[in-house]
Amino acid sequence: MSTYDKRTIPTLISLDPSAPATQQSGLHNRWHHDIPFSASVAPGQAFKLHCLDWTGGQIHNNDSADDIVDVDLSQCHYLTGPVECKGAQPGDVLVVDVMDVVPFPDHAWGYCGIFDINNGGGLLCDDFPLAAKAIWDLDGVYATSRHIPGVRFAGISHPGIMGCAPSKELLYKWNQRETQLIAEHAGTVPPVAYPPTIQSAYVGATESLSQAVIDTIAREGARTIPPREHGGNCDIKNLSKGSRVYFPVYVDGAKFSIGDLHFSQGDGELTFCGAIEMAGIVTLKFTLIKDGMKKLSMNSPIYLPSVVDPRYATQVTFQGISVDQDGNQHSMNATVAYKQAARAAIEYLHSLGYTKEQAYLLMSCAPIDARVASIVDHPNASVTIGIPTEIFDRDIRPDAVAVAFEAGILKRDYGAYHATTTKRA
Amino acid sequence: MSTYDKRTIPTLISLDPSAPATQQSGLHNRWHHDIPFSASVAPGQAFKLHCLDWTGGQIHNNDSADDIVDVDLSQCHYLTGPVECKGAQPGDVLVVDVMDVVPFPDHAWGYCGIFDINNGGGLLCDDFPLAAKAIWDLDGVYATSRHIPGVRFAGISHPGIMGCAPSKELLYKWNQRETQLIAEHAGTVPPVAYPPTIQSAYVGATESLSQAVIDTIAREGARTIPPREHGGNCDIKNLSKGSRVYFPVYVDGAKFSIGDLHFSQGDGELTFCGAIEMAGIVTLKFTLIKDGMKKLSMNSPIYLPSVVDPRYATQVTFQGISVDQDGNQHSMNATVAYKQAARAAIEYLHSLGYTKEQAYLLMSCAPIDARVASIVDHPNASVTIGIPTEIFDRDIRPDAVAVAFEAGILKRDYGAYHATTTKRA
Amino acid sequence: MSTYDKRTIPTLISLDPSAPATQQSGLHNRWHHDIPFSASVAPGQAFKLHCLDWTGGQIHNNDSADDIVDVDLSQCHYLTGPVECKGAQPGDVLVVDVMDVVPFPDHAWGYCGIFDINNGGGLLCDDFPLAAKAIWDLDGVYATSRHIPGVRFAGISHPGIMGCAPSKELLYKWNQRETQLIAEHAGTVPPVAYPPTIQSAYVGATESLSQAVIDTIAREGARTIPPREHGGNCDIKNLSKGSRVYFPVYVDGAKFSIGDLHFSQGDGELTFCGAIEMAGIVTLKFTLIKDGMKKLSMNSPIYLPSVVDPRYATQVTFQGISVDQDGNQHSMNATVAYKQAARAAIEYLHSLGYTKEQAYLLMSCAPIDARVASIVDHPNASVTIGIPTEIFDRDIRPDAVAVAFEAGILKRDYGAYHATTTKRA
Amino acid sequence: MSTYDKRTIPTLISLDPSAPATQQSGLHNRWHHDIPFSASVAPGQAFKLHCLDWTGGQIHNNDSADDIVDVDLSQCHYLTGPVECKGAQPGDVLVVDVMDVVPFPDHAWGYCGIFDINNGGGLLCDDFPLAAKAIWDLDGVYATSRHIPGVRFAGISHPGIMGCAPSKELLYKWNQRETQLIAEHAGTVPPVAYPPTIQSAYVGATESLSQAVIDTIAREGARTIPPREHGGNCDIKNLSKGSRVYFPVYVDGAKFSIGDLHFSQGDGELTFCGAIEMAGIVTLKFTLIKDGMKKLSMNSPIYLPSVVDPRYATQVTFQGISVDQDGNQHSMNATVAYKQAARAAIEYLHSLGYTKEQAYLLMSCAPIDARVASIVDHPNASVTIGIPTEIFDRDIRPDAVAVAFEAGILKRDYGAYHATTTKRA
Repeated sequence: MSTYDKRTIPTLISLDPSAPATQQSGLHNRWHHDIPFSASVAPGQAFKLHCLDWTGGQIHNNDSADDIVDVDLSQCHYLTGPVECKGAQPGDVLVVDVMDVVPFPDHAWGYCGIFDINNGGGLLCDDFPLAAKAIWDLDGVYATSRHIPGVRFAGISHPGIMGCAPSKELLYKWNQRETQLIAEHAGTVPPVAYPPTIQSAYVGATESLSQAVIDTIAREGARTIPPREHGGNCDIKNLSKGSRVYFPVYVDGAKFSIGDLHFSQGDGELTFCGAIEMAGIVTLKFTLIKDGMKKLSMNSPIYLPSVVDPRYATQVTFQGISVDQDGNQHSMNATVAYKQAARAAIEYLHSLGYTKEQAYLLMSCAPIDARVASIVDHPNASVTIGIPTEIFDRDIRPDAVAVAFEAGILKRDYGAYHATTTKRA
Repeated sequence: MSTYDKRTIPTLISLDPSAPATQQSGLHNRWHHDIPFSASVAPGQAFKLHCLDWTGGQIHNNDSADDIVDVDLSQCHYLTGPVECKGAQPGDVLVVDVMDVVPFPDHAWGYCGIFDINNGGGLLCDDFPLAAKAIWDLDGVYATSRHIPGVRFAGISHPGIMGCAPSKELLYKWNQRETQLIAEHAGTVPPVAYPPTIQSAYVGATESLSQAVIDTIAREGARTIPPREHGGNCDIKNLSKGSRVYFPVYVDGAKFSIGDLHFSQGDGELTFCGAIEMAGIVTLKFTLIKDGMKKLSMNSPIYLPSVVDPRYATQVTFQGISVDQDGNQHSMNATVAYKQAARAAIEYLHSLGYTKEQAYLLMSCAPIDARVASIVDHPNASVTIGIPTEIFDRDIRPDAVAVAFEAGILKRDYGAYHATTTKRA
Repeated sequence: MSTYDKRTIPTLISLDPSAPATQQSGLHNRWHHDIPFSASVAPGQAFKLHCLDWTGGQIHNNDSADDIVDVDLSQCHYLTGPVECKGAQPGDVLVVDVMDVVPFPDHAWGYCGIFDINNGGGLLCDDFPLAAKAIWDLDGVYATSRHIPGVRFAGISHPGIMGCAPSKELLYKWNQRETQLIAEHAGTVPPVAYPPTIQSAYVGATESLSQAVIDTIAREGARTIPPREHGGNCDIKNLSKGSRVYFPVYVDGAKFSIGDLHFSQGDGELTFCGAIEMAGIVTLKFTLIKDGMKKLSMNSPIYLPSVVDPRYATQVTFQGISVDQDGNQHSMNATVAYKQAARAAIEYLHSLGYTKEQAYLLMSCAPIDARVASIVDHPNASVTIGIPTEIFDRDIRPDAVAVAFEAGILKRDYGAYHATTTKRA
Repeated sequence: MSTYDKRTIPTLISLDPSAPATQQSGLHNRWHHDIPFSASVAPGQAFKLHCLDWTGGQIHNNDSADDIVDVDLSQCHYLTGPVECKGAQPGDVLVVDVMDVVPFPDHAWGYCGIFDINNGGGLLCDDFPLAAKAIWDLDGVYATSRHIPGVRFAGISHPGIMGCAPSKELLYKWNQRETQLIAEHAGTVPPVAYPPTIQSAYVGATESLSQAVIDTIAREGARTIPPREHGGNCDIKNLSKGSRVYFPVYVDGAKFSIGDLHFSQGDGELTFCGAIEMAGIVTLKFTLIKDGMKKLSMNSPIYLPSVVDPRYATQVTFQGISVDQDGNQHSMNATVAYKQAARAAIEYLHSLGYTKEQAYLLMSCAPIDARVASIVDHPNASVTIGIPTEIFDRDIRPDAVAVAFEAGILKRDYGAYHATTTKRA
């Protein structure tokens, strides 16, 4: 072997996706500057990290949605890290090369689900108050589901969450603004935000910490649900292998964490438990741009999505505007517009023989594009959602659908078998 | 000539882009079921329509933004039509093939602008209260601007507005909900919506109408600014030639209108006068799906965007969340998220040497992708905006920018010359 | 109008596609340095040129292939030009922006054909000795044919021929090497090359020339059939609008000519009369790189194909190697490999219900990719031919085909009606 | 664990890329129907196979090309297999899903080389008679080389060789036609084909075979260098993960073998040792179409390349015709045309500062597209070679190159350090 031979890429944090999350180290489920490093690496050195699925193994590969009903969201998300990037200082930019994102070799499956409206809900929880689930087999680059027949698509696998730990000041800002929002919307179901809670707070390798610090982290640590200016739960479906991401650094060593791996996700992640959620292994490499936040005029991440993503030629595309399902006019509300586009798409897929739950789940995890078409034409924003035609085993273009309707052969039933529940949270 | 030779495609409505809009027929600037047909065509027959730019020629190819300051929005948009599709009835679907969208041969230029906050404004009018303008030369498939040097991109030319006339009932619903919204937000600048107004209402070929009907149309006719469930001002940037669109039909003959041609537009159309606005010629073909709204389970248009659009391999991508520029936390607000992503992108382009106005204009009209990445992670929606790197004459990827910053060669000034104004609306 | 307004793009050479070629000026059908300029233009000025179809109107829009049988190839190709680029000198590079390529508005049709083996032939003339023809309707960006049902594809319209006139020395070289080849393969059917011939030589605007010069041109002028180091009949299917081409200049003023417009072509142009041949209008712009051949180290054209071409996600792909249909082994022969890949593809399409002639025609004009996969693995080159699945109105992937075969529903007959002939050249 | 959980994908054949090939089982380097199965699998069961690099470890990660000079080609290629697909019979089609192709985790490097003209040579061995080598670091989806600076590209990793064992009759046909070709070209350097040879013949798990059978295999077994009608060394660069291939079956159990893994390859594989050659691991799955050769009308493989390949927007494209470097005219020779296009591209890259050896190596292994543009325009075929611009760290478009030339900043030397040799085979 010559000196040039590359050594094996080290696995900095190893996990067992079948074991309870709380019995494993290298994990945490809150954002806090005092969570100690779980691993350390120098810039330029590729490394691997294991990741649990976002719930830490609460959801199982079976045909019942009961586990979805009962999911404990206060545990979510189990993140791997924090990892120290040697030499990183506040103001630097941590450049992260996403070199690979794969499921564990012996866990080649994932799931997506609809949460019960009383336990998490989703974007269309008024339409879909009850839990449901679909299991996906991960077959090389493709996913198929026994619960949603007739589709097969290439995953654009990515981590839903990446980011560096916030500084004390930034964390304070997060907690303050979100607490205020919660106060303003008290009693909303599902809640408008998730405040810090000591329930199920898990702050990793605590052996080096005093109980007082552990308690502080649990009490102050920001929940991992939302994306924030450090990145976090951005759920950008194209951050697949080959992507490069530029993250702001707020604390010494950067304290980078990662998790919420998705085999595939649609833009928007509609159902909340929306991507094909999986446990898996990521391969990463850090480099640093010293004083990079200033050099790049940046206060939030910059992304260079991968050139290796599938691109589909044809998409059946639906439109939504800022008028909700009850006919109420909103002012330039892109959220309402997105929801209405999604509803139109679900209605269309339903007319092809899918149950509405199947359509909602599919829209959430298949490589759907959601675009803000226009957001200046008062009072309506215009959002489009495009479904690639090639992922179906038959022609879903409107011309073909109209012909099939005419011929009476449209209502092939895709709905006979999918995982639901009669439980209620 | 054999019987198979195709005849010349007829131009159903001819216009002169240099003449005043109000002296020309075949135009209207309100949506109303009583506006009479300007032309008629059978399904299957290709045809051409001339279109003015959306303001009806108010903006000129010069280096002053004074015309932008003074633009009369009550005239907007001048639409071409309505065109009768023979045989169309309510409940049918009008299938429109967009066969071509080109500028007038002797008007190979377009413009984009920033409206004064007191006369229209734009999405970021708080940051950009003053008017500005950029003229674009349309050079085959590419656009370049003397006001924004260093970029050249292929246009994805499309009509910003297409749609069929609303039924009486649908129009009533529009006016009611929008009027109510205006009442709820009285005094907002810019206004949250545009109510019907007789000022500048132009209802086309009125010779067949009684004055009473003309007055009714002017008084009731819906403004053309927003997209609505019939389509309208959707500003979907990929509805370029080769696209097929399925529109709901609400009145006999469909009464299809079209206008607001864009040589190119970014997702979102940020500045409001945001695309490269142009006068031009469209080639279309109608077909009908009888009783199609039921067959396709549709209440709003369905689109099959063209396969002939340029696709760029690499995009520098920015993220926004539902926290506004003042640090206020909003609840799952995709509009705020879009705005914040746009601000991050503008800041970045500004650091490359563009003025902020140039950056804002460029983001509005270049082939920018804006995606709803996630819209379920309470309290923050995540919106991304991607700028294709290949449209610039130099490397804008962060690695190159950091190196150039280091070398002190970054601040090449792109701002020396662009069209602004000192006037104020 | 401000001084910035662009004037109409001038049409430098106008033609009537319905009139006899020999009664029109601005045309020539040989390459020769003494052919006088038909038009002149300065660098930077966009301009239009009319072009006849390559045969000068010999083929008609009907259902008989008799005109194909009798085509006079000594007239081919009618090129438009030569056009002077002011200031161009030998050693310069003429940069040509292809701004647009469209059919004449009232001639929105094209044709492809199989030549009789005794009058031109094609690559597989041993398999297809008899003439056939398909007419294509050009419907915006798409083509469809009454002679080949079940397909619809976007054209990647381009000029098959572009190039500058050769110098006297270069012309001499061409004639010498080709004449020698002909001598070495005397009596081959179809011929291995086409020598200069005075028959049907047409050298354009001859009023300024002495009869002696005219005779010299006719006697010496190189035929336009092959591509050569100046470019010429390269038939590169992706040189569509938005492309930029860098041509060597050999004579003062460049003497650029263009013709052989194709609405669409497959890689290889298999049948010889293989693209969807059309008359039409090109829009071009010249710029010059002085002394560019040295600066770019080039002796033959360099191309930047357009970013605006359709890209299909899925292609059914066939392979050929250097073993011919009789089982003979050739040494690293990519031509044989191409032919065998084409035969495999034709056989496959035939099994779907197309006649072999339809399949051969389709492979020739649809957007087929032909790649040299490997050309180093002695003794076999490997060439692949990929057919995009999306251009068909049904699923042509092998899995679907096998299922359809099993179900006995495969042999839908596409062959009932296509244009053939019983004439023989 | 529920019954649905997928088990670990089994590795059917394990190899050590650092150990001598001849001490490992599960390998063979000839095609012969009597080579016994090394493994067996049922249709529908995913499995992994280890593969050595094609030379069986003869080439090392260092800065000398001496190992290239001395390579023993009679050992090539070491293939993994044959694998039995249970139930496969002659006439069936073996459907192979390529689920993954990766380097061994601790061997994340590959090489490309130029063979000495006296030991293998390459397509342009007359121009490049001496050996050279480049080592590539495989960094997630990207490759970079210390021997060819300034480029970084995403690999489209694929197996160069896949196929089923030939029947006795088919093998006889191969040997006969190739032996005859060799006889017709006796003494050619490099040879036109490689006859069966007992030298270094390695036929795998021979413990079950009599010495007589082993001797027969060694004496008759077809060399693995060329592609043939069963597939074999097709070197199709887009058969990356996500691809599906349909292979003819000639013997019971199919006897499928695979090898010659490439991290990346250019169309044509120009230098012969041309791809980024690597040892690695493939994940595959078989299914069967019973009697499929008849159902699909196929006598050679059909491919569905993956949707997950990178697609570059811009390519600098060069042209070659059937006139060789000495000016000799060939008749419709696509091989000569390919070579001339390659020479033009190498000349261009050389003008940018690369040595010609670097350019030749780069063209061979980077994702270059080579297309047969036209192959009917007597006497010249037209072949194009396109180099994606985005893989370089600077602008290689001709306009930028001409400007750089003018400014005198073009000749940046990329040639200071690369792996060559003074040895001669």
